[in-house]
Amino acid sequence: MSGFKGKVWLAAAAVCAAALSVPAVSHFDDKEMPQSYRQSYFALLAANFGPMVASVKGEVPWDQVKMENWANDLAALSTLDVMRGFVDGSDKGTTRAKPEIWQDKADFTSKMETLHTELASLQQVTAGGDREAIAKQVGAAGKACKSCHDEYKAENYLY
Amino acid sequence: MSGFKGKVWLAAAAVCAAALSVPAVSHFDDKEMPQSYRQSYFALLAANFGPMVASVKGEVPWDQVKMENWANDLAALSTLDVMRGFVDGSDKGTTRAKPEIWQDKADFTSKMETLHTELASLQQVTAGGDREAIAKQVGAAGKACKSCHDEYKAENYLY
Repeated sequence: MSGFKGKVWLAAAAVCAAALSVPAVSHFDDKEMPQSYRQSYFALLAANFGPMVASVKGEVPWDQVKMENWANDLAALSTLDVMRGFVDGSDKGTTRAKPEIWQDKADFTSKMETLHTELASLQQVTAGGDREAIAKQVGAAGKACKSCHDEYKAENYLY
Repeated sequence: MSGFKGKVWLAAAAVCAAALSVPAVSHFDDKEMPQSYRQSYFALLAANFGPMVASVKGEVPWDQVKMENWANDLAALSTLDVMRGFVDGSDKGTTRAKPEIWQDKADFTSKMETLHTELASLQQVTAGGDREAIAKQVGAAGKACKSCHDEYKAENYLY
């Protein structure tokens, strides 16, 4: 690619990209808040899963279209490579991620894969429209969250 | 769903979910950092687009597998309903999102749809493996970012 000449739109592209959590890549825009890859990821999961739980619990009115949108967003998010947020050496900073994650990466990865599977199912089940089935699958996905939190998420920030 | 009895796993599900940016839903976990839906979204976009730009510029070695992973993640992210992060009334807080977004939501939405299209193309082109074509499409996606930033992203935080 060294012969590539289109520097103008590469400059434009650079403006777009803040290289968060990417070693060896310069910061394109240092005015961004330092949100980490993994915290952003879990914030988006929560922002979609939270209202599904609230709907199932009857805390907010059931809206089938919204339920499907949330389930679709969760399924899309679950395809992301979240382990990028847990690379070796990233167990520092303002975090509730316990050191045990880095000590048993295989177990943690396996739990994230379970979550992926449960969220893929949630998308399918939600599309089906059967509220009781949806509630069950919301519960199954919640269990996948919890099994990981119990072991790997600290009660308070560690640093 | 009021008759639904599986309160145990709903409680488990609730532990998982912090209801960020979701009005009328109680906070499940108030120890999280207040990362907003839209800032988390753009942080993840940047974390995937940044290294693609750096690769095209030759700042980091080209890794075709990683390029495809980043492009896949971008395509998945671009399917999310990011406009949820720009609902009416959300033009407050620590933000670089200009008020003009809320004044011309249709134009902003259209620009986000252009980005969606460009990122879907980026996934396809990257899978093809032609570096020059990939560089061109990274540029096109970067232009989509920039056209929105120019109009709607402030130089510094507004509040």
